[in-house]
Amino acid sequence: MKTDIEIAQQATLKPIEAIAQQLDLTTDQWEPYGHTKAKLSDSLLKDLDDTSDGKIILVTSINPTPAGEGKSTVAVGLGQAFDKIGKNAAIALREPSMGPVMGLKGGAAGGGYSQLLPMEDINLHFTGDLHAITTANNALSAMIDNHIHRGNSLNIDPRRVEWKRVMDMNDRALRQMVVGLGGPTRGVPREDGFNITVASEVMAILCLATSLDDLKQRLARIVIGYTREEEPVTVNDLNMEGALTLLLKDALKPNLVQTTENTPAIIHGGPFANIAHGCNSMMATKTAAKLADYVVTEAGFGADLGAEKFLDIKSRVGGFDTSTVVIVATVRALKMHGGVSQDDLKQENVDALNGGMANLQKHIETIEQFGLSYVVAINKFPTDTDAETEFITTWCQARGVDVALTDVFASGGAGGTELAEKVVQKAEETPENVQYVYDTNDSIENKVRKVAQNVYGADDIALSAKAQKQLHFYEKQGWGHLPVCIAKTQYSLSDDPSLLGRPEGFTITIRELRPSIGAGFIVVLTGDMLTMPGLPKEPAALKMDITEEGNVTGLF
Amino acid sequence: MKTDIEIAQQATLKPIEAIAQQLDLTTDQWEPYGHTKAKLSDSLLKDLDDTSDGKIILVTSINPTPAGEGKSTVAVGLGQAFDKIGKNAAIALREPSMGPVMGLKGGAAGGGYSQLLPMEDINLHFTGDLHAITTANNALSAMIDNHIHRGNSLNIDPRRVEWKRVMDMNDRALRQMVVGLGGPTRGVPREDGFNITVASEVMAILCLATSLDDLKQRLARIVIGYTREEEPVTVNDLNMEGALTLLLKDALKPNLVQTTENTPAIIHGGPFANIAHGCNSMMATKTAAKLADYVVTEAGFGADLGAEKFLDIKSRVGGFDTSTVVIVATVRALKMHGGVSQDDLKQENVDALNGGMANLQKHIETIEQFGLSYVVAINKFPTDTDAETEFITTWCQARGVDVALTDVFASGGAGGTELAEKVVQKAEETPENVQYVYDTNDSIENKVRKVAQNVYGADDIALSAKAQKQLHFYEKQGWGHLPVCIAKTQYSLSDDPSLLGRPEGFTITIRELRPSIGAGFIVVLTGDMLTMPGLPKEPAALKMDITEEGNVTGLF
Repeated sequence: MKTDIEIAQQATLKPIEAIAQQLDLTTDQWEPYGHTKAKLSDSLLKDLDDTSDGKIILVTSINPTPAGEGKSTVAVGLGQAFDKIGKNAAIALREPSMGPVMGLKGGAAGGGYSQLLPMEDINLHFTGDLHAITTANNALSAMIDNHIHRGNSLNIDPRRVEWKRVMDMNDRALRQMVVGLGGPTRGVPREDGFNITVASEVMAILCLATSLDDLKQRLARIVIGYTREEEPVTVNDLNMEGALTLLLKDALKPNLVQTTENTPAIIHGGPFANIAHGCNSMMATKTAAKLADYVVTEAGFGADLGAEKFLDIKSRVGGFDTSTVVIVATVRALKMHGGVSQDDLKQENVDALNGGMANLQKHIETIEQFGLSYVVAINKFPTDTDAETEFITTWCQARGVDVALTDVFASGGAGGTELAEKVVQKAEETPENVQYVYDTNDSIENKVRKVAQNVYGADDIALSAKAQKQLHFYEKQGWGHLPVCIAKTQYSLSDDPSLLGRPEGFTITIRELRPSIGAGFIVVLTGDMLTMPGLPKEPAALKMDITEEGNVTGLF
Repeated sequence: MKTDIEIAQQATLKPIEAIAQQLDLTTDQWEPYGHTKAKLSDSLLKDLDDTSDGKIILVTSINPTPAGEGKSTVAVGLGQAFDKIGKNAAIALREPSMGPVMGLKGGAAGGGYSQLLPMEDINLHFTGDLHAITTANNALSAMIDNHIHRGNSLNIDPRRVEWKRVMDMNDRALRQMVVGLGGPTRGVPREDGFNITVASEVMAILCLATSLDDLKQRLARIVIGYTREEEPVTVNDLNMEGALTLLLKDALKPNLVQTTENTPAIIHGGPFANIAHGCNSMMATKTAAKLADYVVTEAGFGADLGAEKFLDIKSRVGGFDTSTVVIVATVRALKMHGGVSQDDLKQENVDALNGGMANLQKHIETIEQFGLSYVVAINKFPTDTDAETEFITTWCQARGVDVALTDVFASGGAGGTELAEKVVQKAEETPENVQYVYDTNDSIENKVRKVAQNVYGADDIALSAKAQKQLHFYEKQGWGHLPVCIAKTQYSLSDDPSLLGRPEGFTITIRELRPSIGAGFIVVLTGDMLTMPGLPKEPAALKMDITEEGNVTGLF
């Protein structure tokens, strides 16, 4: 089979005008970025206020292997499959971060015949959204250090500046540093570090904002650190929300591109899926729902992380309904949950598969608890055997679970028509009536407990001394009503990445909290979350190249 | 009078298609970035190989005051004035850096009725060129630290990594730091620092490259530091030139916009004017020359820095002719050179003006030494008195120097027609026959000496012990044939910023050299050059804002 970039380069892209016309957009509702990319007007959502909403289909998955289970590929393929069965669909997904693209991943825009195009641009600078977020984040950092340097009238405690600088890069050397060295003309020395851009609260804010004003108000509420008296210091105290909003004026506009089969795709925003909510932007999802009858969207990692946050945070804040859920499973991930080591995943092993089904079972129960309908999608890999895929199908049918074998990587939309038909049926038949896992009026501790018990299957939570102190402090600050955004390993339902399958009898340990007051949630850390990746021994970048004629290699 | 941004917002922009049509571009020769910006194809220069070249007009100035003398405004106004007198002109200028825009400047796209539009975009993210340069620069940094972290097979000396990270920000706290702290999983601790993006060698390279291949070859030659045996380590040794070129594939394409009066403007690249050559890109200048009969371009700071480098480096490397030079002078800067303090510049003072003319006289002599024709442009400020402007005019006429009073800030192109007519006359009458100040085969030391003596008016140069050692080392490395790029204060002809007017009897002290082997020159430092600015007490960013309707304030 051809590589992703070969398929991408051989695909016939329509001019972006044609895609905009498919969506009935008038010329003042979008602006071109090159011939095959566009930005939608940030007032489009307001313009379309009276239009009825299409149905939102959320693609999630079981706990993944380190390589991922092709959730984006299934989402793109499902969008294309809707077209094949005569339904009007749009795809609304996250935009890739360049750091991982240059590091391990080499690309993050679907795969095979279910890709987002132009993949060379989407995987690199795209329309500059991540650069704008980096700039806004770092303009705030520069302003904080300048404030301290020039007399510190707000009395910011240099030891309590929580706001970090960011870069869209995998750069381990920037994780921990001392800045401001070199004497009085070079600022005030303090400990600092860089996160990757997608971990910036600015990214989370951009992805939840629904207008320039909403964006500005959220930015103003960011807590950048504390005074010596431990009072929170906000962006509003620094008077920077206007400049930051200005820096983000274009980044707030959703991006329009197309898939390998010319299905419209709105690709916008990409917050971290553990310390943030891990979904594409609210503007993109809501706009897509105005423009198409079916919107296919996804959330990061498995249903325990991504779907929970999509439902409890994003859909609650956005006040929109989720119509039905697709739970992506793969033979290899299920075998891993059944005890097979990563090196042996290519060998047929129905016994291990049987053992691993408990992981899928738990995610099914989670979606049922949310009160939503769902379809299981088996994302086919070339190494899957018939015995294995049939086992999963039979397992599902025996439990009355709708299941579809999908082959969208190799066959594009045609490989996903069964899934699309089952999704349509679910979406038409079932009520849209989500039951959130917690009430926002619950205490922070109880919110976390409910997610841990009902979504992860834990017995209970345990709080570190630091977390206990923070809980008290946060409730006192009036932050207790915010939803919780739990950062946890994606590999296990528990907080121990080595506990695969469906672990039981475990406790989730809450190490630390962080306020994301602009985004509007409390981040809850259950372990040592790395917010700046490092490069591997052989970074993907070493294979990247472009010829004088503009032919790109090394993205995949 | 209205503010710059008010004028910009009230201007009637043509769709960028119309500007492209004015330049006879076919639709495959450019791509839109929004409705009023475009990128030109990077193969356009090759496509137009058989077209004859327009005349290149270089705008330079006397030694400026800290506020600048409006060189960009005069360049934009002159371009518009060409239109007024029926000549086909294009403007080719540098793109602004966001750091200074957020810091002191608030904007850098001309001023008044001689602006580049859309100024809100050009002053901020524009088409993402600076972000791409930042990313390429920092991808290289991440790769260097990753290489050291993972075994350091190239034997890079962590104490001799000369390649710094960059950010397009005024952020003094990043000038000097220790990175890689936190133990073995966080890399190898070493001293580091950030420069502002425009000081990156990647920026200088992008501005001198004429094709993707040329870009790649230049990137491959970058020296990132030295081994423990003091052998240079290059990007080619790290195998990163392919990925870096890919990251710059769109940044290499020149940007097309328009002025307040709809004159085409190609705005591309913006290297530092002291540690780099300070001119817009080679691609932009050469492309503009293919598309218009007259190209107005500029070079940073006064003629001692910008024009010298434009001629000795850029035009020599590019093999193009410079037709005539405009030397911008202002009443206030000349008074400063005559001894008036900055606070008193608004008061009429013809005596001081008389004293300051020596500075203009020296720059005139410099341009004459280069064998080029010139016109002096008096860039009018509201505080200038008739007696003052008449004094300069009379002074010039008495010496047979062509001079034009220009008022392009307040009157647009109409304020520059006298200048345009005189420039046309010079360009038509005089031969294009530049005499470089030095021969590239001169020793590095002699190249520097010739610039110091002939352009700055110094008695001689003095070398620090470090510079002497480096000279020897560089010649041994085979770098002796490269042009020199001297970093010197812009305020004085000497290396002492307090020596205004036309100092005499001084020595230029060479503190240190730096190799820019990818850009293709040796940087020669004559003092402590700051390559990362800081924010002032009241940064311009504090006044920036955008309303829900998209109205921008605070850029000027």
